[in-house]
Parts: sequence; structure tokens; C-alpha cells
Amino acid sequence: MTAYTLGSLLYEGKAKRVFATDQPDLVAVEYKDDATAFNALKKAQLAGKGELNCRISALLFEHLASRGVPTHYLGVQGSQWMLVRPVRVIPIEVVIRNVAAGSLCKQMPIQPGTPLEPPLLDLYYKDDAYGDPLLTEARLDVLGLVTPDQRRELEELARRVNGELLTLFDGIGLQLVDFKIELGFTAGGELVVADEISPDTCRLWDRAVTDASDRILDKDRFRQDLGGVVEAYGEVLKRVQGACPEPRIYR
Amino acid sequence: MTAYTLGSLLYEGKAKRVFATDQPDLVAVEYKDDATAFNALKKAQLAGKGELNCRISALLFEHLASRGVPTHYLGVQGSQWMLVRPVRVIPIEVVIRNVAAGSLCKQMPIQPGTPLEPPLLDLYYKDDAYGDPLLTEARLDVLGLVTPDQRRELEELARRVNGELLTLFDGIGLQLVDFKIELGFTAGGELVVADEISPDTCRLWDRAVTDASDRILDKDRFRQDLGGVVEAYGEVLKRVQGACPEPRIYR
Repeated sequence: MTAYTLGSLLYEGKAKRVFATDQPDLVAVEYKDDATAFNALKKAQLAGKGELNCRISALLFEHLASRGVPTHYLGVQGSQWMLVRPVRVIPIEVVIRNVAAGSLCKQMPIQPGTPLEPPLLDLYYKDDAYGDPLLTEARLDVLGLVTPDQRRELEELARRVNGELLTLFDGIGLQLVDFKIELGFTAGGELVVADEISPDTCRLWDRAVTDASDRILDKDRFRQDLGGVVEAYGEVLKRVQGACPEPRIYR
Repeated sequence: MTAYTLGSLLYEGKAKRVFATDQPDLVAVEYKDDATAFNALKKAQLAGKGELNCRISALLFEHLASRGVPTHYLGVQGSQWMLVRPVRVIPIEVVIRNVAAGSLCKQMPIQPGTPLEPPLLDLYYKDDAYGDPLLTEARLDVLGLVTPDQRRELEELARRVNGELLTLFDGIGLQLVDFKIELGFTAGGELVVADEISPDTCRLWDRAVTDASDRILDKDRFRQDLGGVVEAYGEVLKRVQGACPEPRIYR
């Protein structure tokens, strides 16, 4: 892979920094050690988290690519840098839930752990100033962020990702409870999976553990002050490494 | 209309009490003077509000009936009592917005006063314990409160109500910004408009007034501490009285 030179900071989010490079078709993403939850009301620094999420994301993007799912991912460099294609990210968070957990159980009379069949797909408007509100189809039409056809394409791609990840995680003893993805359009107009896929954005339960707290291997350990956040992410990395193609390396 | 005897208290809400009567096909609703907002975090007693809402609701239900829209309404008795058919109320609040206002403008980048065409229809799960959350179609399916056919019927009836009320209010110099209704099934399975229709459940702006606060003739006067709540409701009553059939009286 070609060498590149870092350009200006394009965007800084809660967990990542995105930089331009000297190559127009290449954007560099730095994974930070910052942990935030509840719309950044809760914050911490967790040494090693950035590297773990970068490596887990890279492996999962490699897996999706091997399964024919289009993503923005190109490769990794060093321990916390990911190279991706530039995409216009749609400001919609797509959440797919296979099992009831988290905010859903505060908003509906449904017990945590209840299987959701079919998986529940929720769209949220990604804007902290508005509290990332849930979107109905009609509200999405009012916002005009995507056309109805694009919405269907976006939901279909998210469901494909869910299917692939469910199978992958199942094979390594992890239950994919739910996850959030963001999608975007490349310069050529292709819809691809963007952002990251990691224990920050997925709920993952260890299938071999029955205790409702001990089995948690994701950001809920941070949200719920359970401790062992980095250790849990490390366990996810260990298992994912055995099941996905090795990440492509930039130098 | 036949005399009846009051039976047991069936339900007490924030603004009304519902009683059984000695007649199985007759339920009595008492309109209270209690004002609440923000899921009852804000409370007050407003002398005269119960009577005003009872009279306005009765007039609007009479108008809807005259236009062929099915409602639970049967008549009024005294100043704060309404007689209605017993219905199984669906725990869904249907909100139709013709103009952006209130919570919508906190959840989406849309300026208060922006016309919404087509009107935006939102469904909320009516349960204070869960904060009356917004429902997507998929979440409604998870809850299983209504079938897809019933949902379509419910939305169609709500849109008919909106059409009738828009025309009515327009003729008396009032802009129907938005409103909330509840619907229910009668013993015979007919879907009807239930609950109340009043300045507690509608946003109404005086078309002749341009000042954004002064024009408000609804519960936002209470929510926003603008004062003159009862006077505003009285103005609505005065106008509605000239445009609707006289309420049927029980003795």
C-alpha cells in the first residue's frame, strides 16, 4: 500500500479523529482512548481502547469485505490508525437489535434479554444538539436526509451486516445483542458501511457466561461502571482475530 | 336523555375522572380543574378549566358527529360532566402536526411555525412510566397493541379528524397547529375518537394576532408561564360555540 502524508483535521468525534491525506481517495482515522456515554455526560480515558477498537473494526471490516459487503475500509497503519475511502456520511445512526437491551427497555415494556424476531431496526437522527432522536419514516421524510429509495437501500445494507455479524459472532461464542452503524456515499455514489464496528458500537454477550453482568463484553461495562472494560474488549479482539482475515497494512 | 346513577371510579387521569354508571352502555367523565404539563412535573389548579374543556370538547364532538366522524361522545350533564360510550381505549396517542411547534422543534432542526405538508402524524405509546415514547411502525409491531390494519384505520380516522377540525377552526380565525387524540374500540368493535379535544390537547393560534406569544390560545400558555390560560380557553369556547351544534343535555 502506498505511503501517504497526513493533511488537515476534517472532523473530531467523541472516539475518533478524521484527517485528510495528500491522496484525494484516502482519509485517515485515528482511534482515540476517550470513552464517552450518555451523550458525553460520562467521560473517561481508557488506555488501550483506541487500539483495540481500531484492530477489532479492521478485522470486522475485512470480514464484511470478504463477504461482499461494501465498506469504507481500506487498511490499517500502526496501532490506532485506519485508512478509509472518503465518504459523505449520512447523519443517521442505524441500530439493529436482535435482543432487547439498553434504552429500548426504558422506552417499552420489554424485558432485557427478550429475543426480537424479526430484528428491530431503528433509525436515529445523528445530532447531539437534538439528543440523537428516534426517527419515524414520516419524520425522516420531513428531514429529507435520504430519499425513500435510499432509506430502503440503507436498511437492506444494515440487515445484511446484521446477518453476517450474527453468524460470525455466533461462531466465536458471542451473542450480537444489538449494534449501531453509520453509512455513507462514496464519491462514485456507492452506499457503504462507514464509521467503526467495535465493542463501543455493538452489544456483545459471552454465550458461555450466564451472569447478566459478567457476560457483558462491550461499552455497557463502562456505562454501568462494571470495570474490566479494556479486558473485555481484549477478549473480543482475541476471538475476532481467529475468525477474520488479517487487516491490510499501510506503511 | 335518560337519567343515570353514578357507579364506581374506573380510571383517574391527570385531567379527568371516568366513572361507571348503572347503565352498561353509558360512562360518565368528570373534567377536573387540574392542569399538568411535562409528564406531570408541572402542576396547578385552574378554576374553570374543567368546565371550559368539557364544553369545548362537547361542541367539537358534536361537530365531528355532524360530519359523520365516529366518537365516544353522547352528551353533557351539568357544567363538568360528559357522557360517553364505554370504549377500550388504545394506549396510543396520535399526534397530527400541521405546523412545527413544541417538542418536534427540540428533536429536529425545524423552526417553530414551519408548515408541515403533508401534516406529520406521530404515534406515541401512552404510558407515563416509559415517558410516552415515540413509536415507529416496527416498535408498534413489537408492542403488538394494534394490527397493521388497525393502525392504518386509526391513522385514517385521525387524518379525517384533522381535516374536519382544520376547516372548522379556520372558519373562526384559529390556526390548528397540532393536536393529540386517543382512539378506542366500542363493545361492537367500532373504532371511535375517545378522550377529549380541547385547548389542553390542541395547539391553537389566533390568526388575527402576529405576536408569537400573544396568539397562543392553548395549554402552551400554562407550559410557558404566559398567564391568561383560562381567558384563552374562554376565547376558544366563545368562537367554537358559534360554529358547532349545541351539545345534547343529560339530566
